[in-house]
Amino acid sequence: MSIDYQSLAVKGVQALTPYQPGKPIDELARELGLNPDSIIKLASNENPLGPSPRALAAVREALHDLCRYPDGNGFELKQALSARFGVKLSQLTLGNGSNDVLEVITRCFADQQSEVVFSQYAFAVYALVTQAIGATGVSVPARDYGHDLDAMAEAVTDLTKLVFVANPNNPTGTVHGAKAIGAFLDRIPARVLVVLDEAYCEYRQADDAVDALALLERHPNLIITRTFSKAWGLASLRAGYSISSAEIANVLNRVRQPFNVDNLALTAATAVLDDEEYLQRSREVNAEGMKQLETAFGKMGLAYIPSAGNFIAVDVGDKAADVNQSLLEQGVIVRPIAGYGMPRHLRVSIGLPEENDRFIESLARALDALPAAESGRGV
Amino acid sequence: MSIDYQSLAVKGVQALTPYQPGKPIDELARELGLNPDSIIKLASNENPLGPSPRALAAVREALHDLCRYPDGNGFELKQALSARFGVKLSQLTLGNGSNDVLEVITRCFADQQSEVVFSQYAFAVYALVTQAIGATGVSVPARDYGHDLDAMAEAVTDLTKLVFVANPNNPTGTVHGAKAIGAFLDRIPARVLVVLDEAYCEYRQADDAVDALALLERHPNLIITRTFSKAWGLASLRAGYSISSAEIANVLNRVRQPFNVDNLALTAATAVLDDEEYLQRSREVNAEGMKQLETAFGKMGLAYIPSAGNFIAVDVGDKAADVNQSLLEQGVIVRPIAGYGMPRHLRVSIGLPEENDRFIESLARALDALPAAESGRGV
Repeated sequence: MSIDYQSLAVKGVQALTPYQPGKPIDELARELGLNPDSIIKLASNENPLGPSPRALAAVREALHDLCRYPDGNGFELKQALSARFGVKLSQLTLGNGSNDVLEVITRCFADQQSEVVFSQYAFAVYALVTQAIGATGVSVPARDYGHDLDAMAEAVTDLTKLVFVANPNNPTGTVHGAKAIGAFLDRIPARVLVVLDEAYCEYRQADDAVDALALLERHPNLIITRTFSKAWGLASLRAGYSISSAEIANVLNRVRQPFNVDNLALTAATAVLDDEEYLQRSREVNAEGMKQLETAFGKMGLAYIPSAGNFIAVDVGDKAADVNQSLLEQGVIVRPIAGYGMPRHLRVSIGLPEENDRFIESLARALDALPAAESGRGV
Repeated sequence: MSIDYQSLAVKGVQALTPYQPGKPIDELARELGLNPDSIIKLASNENPLGPSPRALAAVREALHDLCRYPDGNGFELKQALSARFGVKLSQLTLGNGSNDVLEVITRCFADQQSEVVFSQYAFAVYALVTQAIGATGVSVPARDYGHDLDAMAEAVTDLTKLVFVANPNNPTGTVHGAKAIGAFLDRIPARVLVVLDEAYCEYRQADDAVDALALLERHPNLIITRTFSKAWGLASLRAGYSISSAEIANVLNRVRQPFNVDNLALTAATAVLDDEEYLQRSREVNAEGMKQLETAFGKMGLAYIPSAGNFIAVDVGDKAADVNQSLLEQGVIVRPIAGYGMPRHLRVSIGLPEENDRFIESLARALDALPAAESGRGV
């Protein structure tokens, strides 16, 4: 008797389509026979500066300890976060990237009988972790590619356990100001947890930035998640965290794997939190690169979604898949987001000035190869 | 209105007691005001040799890439595993330590309606991941501290989705030979998945070692899990894997986090698989240290459980907690296992010869401080 093992998986898992990461440079090199050094990757919202020297130095010093398990409590990193943000150690939960924290939150507070609310075009992981546990995902139609916070508040029912708000959102770059987020939280019942995903918050302009920590004092149902993978430049090492009430953190810390963050990740993250200069430079390079791309898109007549992150989604027309293929053949990796229901857009991470130039030139070449009516240009 | 956020957690999570890891050296140093360099840790079954030079060199070379996400498919590590074990890439699932793989397996194939079978005194993570998803854990009484495989086969019901077999088992070090594991698998229905946790398999003596890969061909319901944290010396970096049918691996790979293994872990694990000399030396140091401890326990009149791992559980009598406290004060960290229902035993990881000596001397001192009737000696 032959068994269909896939049919033995729990219901949500059977129908799951896994997350599609940005194509790694080595993979493209293998596939197209390109020299890896000739490829640029603007596909995963990575920090183009290379790692912080402080993080590097700290990791080098910790290498002799590779045989030892990490500190499962992450004491030193929690101390550094506590000092920076003025929160208690007991309010912190560390994760293997914020992806891990998002998953742990969902598994702690939702099950097969629950509804989980998020926005159309929001970060794909919300829907995936919801489906994996067999909960019902409620995707609320976006407004101008951004979260429609009023509609999201209205989507909350008696079965809703969690609401995910990405601010800024990936892949659209849309963002809400402090007032809008505060008003939204006022509308959500205290028994429903709100996850404010701030993976990209370090890139925001200061004038209307949400002070999430201040909101936490008024809203004990709030969980703020952040990552070291973007502005802090440590995507390779996987470190993220959440800030919440101590009561919620206590629940999350029961379910996370005991050694979910490895020792080099803990070490690098602790060290980089001291490197204010690196963070500042990351912001500046990003702001300049964003202008560079916006200007180029304007000249090319391409519509884009104004972004508060370190990436920008640009409308390249009906043939976005062909444009993407041409970019790949030119050794430029960006992210197609048809899987997000945005088949005309490509999401481009902000690179170094010369990387941005190369992307712009390659994009122009890709579009020139298309019939004018299909290029998304000429508005 | 004040909300009890713990009561909002899903049922299994509300009652969860988290995994208790071995006490980190820095934590003990903080607590007792000791010099960290004066402390030895024999508490987490770590490789006492320090990391493989090949792994170290590979990690050093990969440091410039800290800003880039890891390859979510782990192509190079999978290739190395495939070459070593003669399995297909499609049969492999990588995890953030084998802990991650064990958790993913459970979440894929069990839910609130399922039963999960494991042995009394088995690795704690089986019960924890089972409880976290609200499934029912069925703990089968051990026989001579080892898995009672007959009783485990009999414990399988229509609701059973998974059976965990740790071979060798942690924390007892007990092990079953090839014939017993084969006969056990013959008794398990094909619709029930059997997880053969081989975290310590590299330490086994060759004469009766289970050829799990051969079993896999006859039993498509088998999943073998292994780790780089023990004999391979990479506990700090968190890398583990499973070998199964491609069909089962396909399910597991949907649910694991897309970047669950970080780039330095992938790099180090790929490199160390080539370091046969390191593995050989790890085995030798372990075998010698095991003899050293067995001899000392014999002289001290202490009963111990013969172990096939890199650790040994020794019966130090009714006052094991006091003995442990005395060891801590002498700067020696071992693992009390009262939480496993073994309140008279301490689990000691095999260290370097001088570490083993220091433990033995400290243990003798701790026992001498107790009234003779309570020392577990004088059998």
